[in-house]
Amino acid sequence: MNDLKNQIDIVLVETSHPGNIGSVARAMKTMGLKNLILVNPKDFPSKEALKLSGNAQDVVGQAIIVSTLDEAIAKSLNVYATSARTRTISWPIITAEDAGIEINENVRQNSKTSIIFGREDRGLTNDELQKANKHILIPSSDEYPVLNIAMSVQVIAYEIYKNADIEIDTEWQDYPELNSRELSMLIDHFIDTSYKLNLFDEENAKKILIRIKRMFTRLKPDKMEGNFFRGFLTRINKKIK
Amino acid sequence: MNDLKNQIDIVLVETSHPGNIGSVARAMKTMGLKNLILVNPKDFPSKEALKLSGNAQDVVGQAIIVSTLDEAIAKSLNVYATSARTRTISWPIITAEDAGIEINENVRQNSKTSIIFGREDRGLTNDELQKANKHILIPSSDEYPVLNIAMSVQVIAYEIYKNADIEIDTEWQDYPELNSRELSMLIDHFIDTSYKLNLFDEENAKKILIRIKRMFTRLKPDKMEGNFFRGFLTRINKKIK
Repeated sequence: MNDLKNQIDIVLVETSHPGNIGSVARAMKTMGLKNLILVNPKDFPSKEALKLSGNAQDVVGQAIIVSTLDEAIAKSLNVYATSARTRTISWPIITAEDAGIEINENVRQNSKTSIIFGREDRGLTNDELQKANKHILIPSSDEYPVLNIAMSVQVIAYEIYKNADIEIDTEWQDYPELNSRELSMLIDHFIDTSYKLNLFDEENAKKILIRIKRMFTRLKPDKMEGNFFRGFLTRINKKIK
Repeated sequence: MNDLKNQIDIVLVETSHPGNIGSVARAMKTMGLKNLILVNPKDFPSKEALKLSGNAQDVVGQAIIVSTLDEAIAKSLNVYATSARTRTISWPIITAEDAGIEINENVRQNSKTSIIFGREDRGLTNDELQKANKHILIPSSDEYPVLNIAMSVQVIAYEIYKNADIEIDTEWQDYPELNSRELSMLIDHFIDTSYKLNLFDEENAKKILIRIKRMFTRLKPDKMEGNFFRGFLTRINKKIK
């Protein structure tokens, strides 16, 4: 992630509300980005920006202020601009997801990347948009496609983070699952107990047996759950006798 | 997209800042979502909420206020919770992207879905987290993984919108699933029966109760299975007496 932090600049053009700068900083930091460049911000430095940045005050504090967009992107080899709507002139367009993948590739090639975000009310001018190699499109509702600037940064930074070669740990089980044989024994125990409780009609027995098997195989109980269930059934059987 | 709007509820638990409710509404509408449910909001209705919602004032205006989380999710067949960190007990986890795909599948099956977001400062309690079938994880930086609530809504709503056209074939159920309320009743019945069978030690009772809840929410029983289980437990209770 160190490379990402150094190689990717988030560039905000003439942001009006300092709170948005703070929210952008927070969105960046949650996704491992650090370099924030502000082109002619209306009101900065600002307490409001710090307040909304949460624990990303370092990102706000290290933000670089410049007076022209050219200056902000001068050293970049890959310049992306974000735009809610298509403009009079068409331009290479890439989705946020594909941009996330491509920007990680830029980073791996040690190739400096800038992502430009426009004004809250008017976005980017055609002239500004044309400084970009590509325009990033965030898929959004036709009825109301206008994401807040910090939301746009969040989604794009998320796609960059998500598509880095980072392994996400979704391991949640704390006991191993029953193996096939153990599961069969549990199912037999359950079915046997149900018989003793007179739960099956002659007519529907077969159908219900299949459903019980399907239910337990779908559940994939772990050993702890299996043991509890077996204990439960053993107690019931003692009560029945 | 009409189905999405009707079948997916965004549920915010005890939100403190009304501005966040407005930002959530805007994030939702940019991704075609409309149903907002507020559990005990601290300060709502509110001008601040309307102000930050942009052109999503209709979403704010139609928000439903309830006093308990149970009420908010009662009719849902698929309950997801968002959580920044893993808790004392682990729970089935799904990434935001996979959740986006899965929720579209729920919608295609006309199956009501709730996505729960916690308090700004403390998130969700363990008890609240355990009402969910799955927890959604937004990949984020280890250094600062705490997304603002509206940012979390934006990312998850974006994944739902983005993945609307990706179909996965999981059609196999012939009965509808139990809704949240019916599932709670089944779990209570099972726990009550287990108590009567003296299956809990003083020491481990709490841990095992949580495991039982987790097991049943993971199983997502259908109505046929639910009925069979309820019959099973009723018979046992008659034997115990």
